[in-house]
Amino acid sequence: MTVSNPPIHQQWIYARQPDAVVGPEHYELRSQPLSFALSSGEVLVAARYISVDPYMRINQSRRPTYNAEPHPLGVVQSAGVVGEVLAARDAPFAPGDWVEGLLGWQTHARVHHSVLRKLDPTLAPVSTALGVLGMPGRTAWFGLTESGRPHAGEVVVVSGAAGAVGSLVAQFARRHGCRVLGIAGGADKCAWLTGTLGLDWAIDYRAHADADSLSRAIRATTGGVDVYFDNVGGWISDAVIPQINRRARIVICGSISQYSGGLDAPELGPRFLHHLLYQRATIQGMLARDYLHRMDEMLRVVGPWVQRGEIVFEETCVDGFEQLPATLNRLFTGEHRGKLLVRVAL
Amino acid sequence: MTVSNPPIHQQWIYARQPDAVVGPEHYELRSQPLSFALSSGEVLVAARYISVDPYMRINQSRRPTYNAEPHPLGVVQSAGVVGEVLAARDAPFAPGDWVEGLLGWQTHARVHHSVLRKLDPTLAPVSTALGVLGMPGRTAWFGLTESGRPHAGEVVVVSGAAGAVGSLVAQFARRHGCRVLGIAGGADKCAWLTGTLGLDWAIDYRAHADADSLSRAIRATTGGVDVYFDNVGGWISDAVIPQINRRARIVICGSISQYSGGLDAPELGPRFLHHLLYQRATIQGMLARDYLHRMDEMLRVVGPWVQRGEIVFEETCVDGFEQLPATLNRLFTGEHRGKLLVRVAL
Repeated sequence: MTVSNPPIHQQWIYARQPDAVVGPEHYELRSQPLSFALSSGEVLVAARYISVDPYMRINQSRRPTYNAEPHPLGVVQSAGVVGEVLAARDAPFAPGDWVEGLLGWQTHARVHHSVLRKLDPTLAPVSTALGVLGMPGRTAWFGLTESGRPHAGEVVVVSGAAGAVGSLVAQFARRHGCRVLGIAGGADKCAWLTGTLGLDWAIDYRAHADADSLSRAIRATTGGVDVYFDNVGGWISDAVIPQINRRARIVICGSISQYSGGLDAPELGPRFLHHLLYQRATIQGMLARDYLHRMDEMLRVVGPWVQRGEIVFEETCVDGFEQLPATLNRLFTGEHRGKLLVRVAL
Repeated sequence: MTVSNPPIHQQWIYARQPDAVVGPEHYELRSQPLSFALSSGEVLVAARYISVDPYMRINQSRRPTYNAEPHPLGVVQSAGVVGEVLAARDAPFAPGDWVEGLLGWQTHARVHHSVLRKLDPTLAPVSTALGVLGMPGRTAWFGLTESGRPHAGEVVVVSGAAGAVGSLVAQFARRHGCRVLGIAGGADKCAWLTGTLGLDWAIDYRAHADADSLSRAIRATTGGVDVYFDNVGGWISDAVIPQINRRARIVICGSISQYSGGLDAPELGPRFLHHLLYQRATIQGMLARDYLHRMDEMLRVVGPWVQRGEIVFEETCVDGFEQLPATLNRLFTGEHRGKLLVRVAL
């Protein structure tokens, strides 16, 4: 294969540990000519959609988190990517195939074919492999079904309900016959939750001065909480937990309110474990990686819902590879709904 | 039945809600002649052993706890009692029978026979019906087996390890093949935990200035925690939780450090739910009442151990009905080991 003007291979290098909110100042852009050299079994992929996810900031904590060591400095930021195969050598892929894999923040990746998942672009937009039919969908589905164990008629409360995972959890819970309260920041998000997603209720936490006020609103709205699917933590959870019903299940899927420093130096909050005692309730932490080998179960159920247009999976798509660090920052400061993505021009 | 000098029926009335530590100032002693009048199905019991338990203070909180309403004022303090039957009318009990029931802080009780459990004094000392073969034993057994789910080779950490429940949990965990760390206050209790109860390790939390120091000691001692059976809460738990292993089970059996006011106005502590996320761990609150109907399962296993002298079940027995409020106070301020009881002279 000969190329007269070889394309440029760009990479965002994770260069400095953040102390608070992560942003462009923690990354460096590296450029080099793209190499088309492949070993046997390798595939060259051109990135088209690159993910930013809250878990990335966890792995930048200075303390042990879900990995014993933080994300190493000086290497490409790890991330999920959807791309097109440019070339393959002794591998079950052909140029033009759509694939998904953990390829990182780079315009191109040369990887062994075994780390790629082939996508069928006729089933759903390929970007959904980073959202409803990818890691966030898997998180929502198994977090709700395996840890939340919802039953028809129960009350499910979702924090971060307008986010990539929360908006799916809320809809999945509705399909279980549950009454669903979404908690989100801002009247627009709340109108979207009830109007577009069809939730029973939404509460704008920004309309409440403190946890006690929010807690009273949750009680008045729901009458009590059977499943709390938590993406946010902090004072939102301080408000929800006192309102749990007997044998409530609390799913800790994320604590995004704590990611910008609170994992290294935990903030203080009111003790609450006595509520677990009174109600014989359960808290369970979950990670999407534990369900990677069960992806087919989620796709078998959720795939048809997506194809039939029964699930709202909003994507906020930012154009431009150079926008990646700023877009990651927006996860913690911005106003997006659903899944936040960066699109890379071919 | 005629009695020339009718005995006195004494009752401790719960008279005032405590704001902090409960004690004699919250109770009033009431005396009246004992009535021997019985309706059909009723039994008259003379109390011999009366229990004081930490849960009593929970139920004095001003907020909803495991009951919607706090313990009512102006009535006999609710409590487990072991006593002798004085008289029975159309009931399957005879004078001299030993029984156990929730008869409250009073020297005598007239109750329907259905609320009494008959005891066999040849199997074990009757006082054990308030300890190892009663509510504390049931709490320890089902809390550990159903919520803790221990496996051989795992590390079990017990807070309040020298207490009525903790000392049993620690021994039950040893019998599951676990390595057991007991946390208790004072060198004497710790020497008892390792020397008499045979635990692998004991740590005196009073020897540590803060949770970080205790936490490092737990890590250095155990290498990581698979099951944390918590009777204490507060800063002891702040020290244990960061040391949990993957898929750890945390059993919330009690939070005695918080009972003297912290249930009404929660104290602040470091947020910790991110550790649950990292380790995909579970917290479960449990109450002994949920296992009341499964008492026979516990007795079938633990009864023979007690009969064969294989379980240490220390009792601290205070003589004198008049000592009840002060003995309850000792639960929160004192230095007893094992089960704290008041013995009533006939």
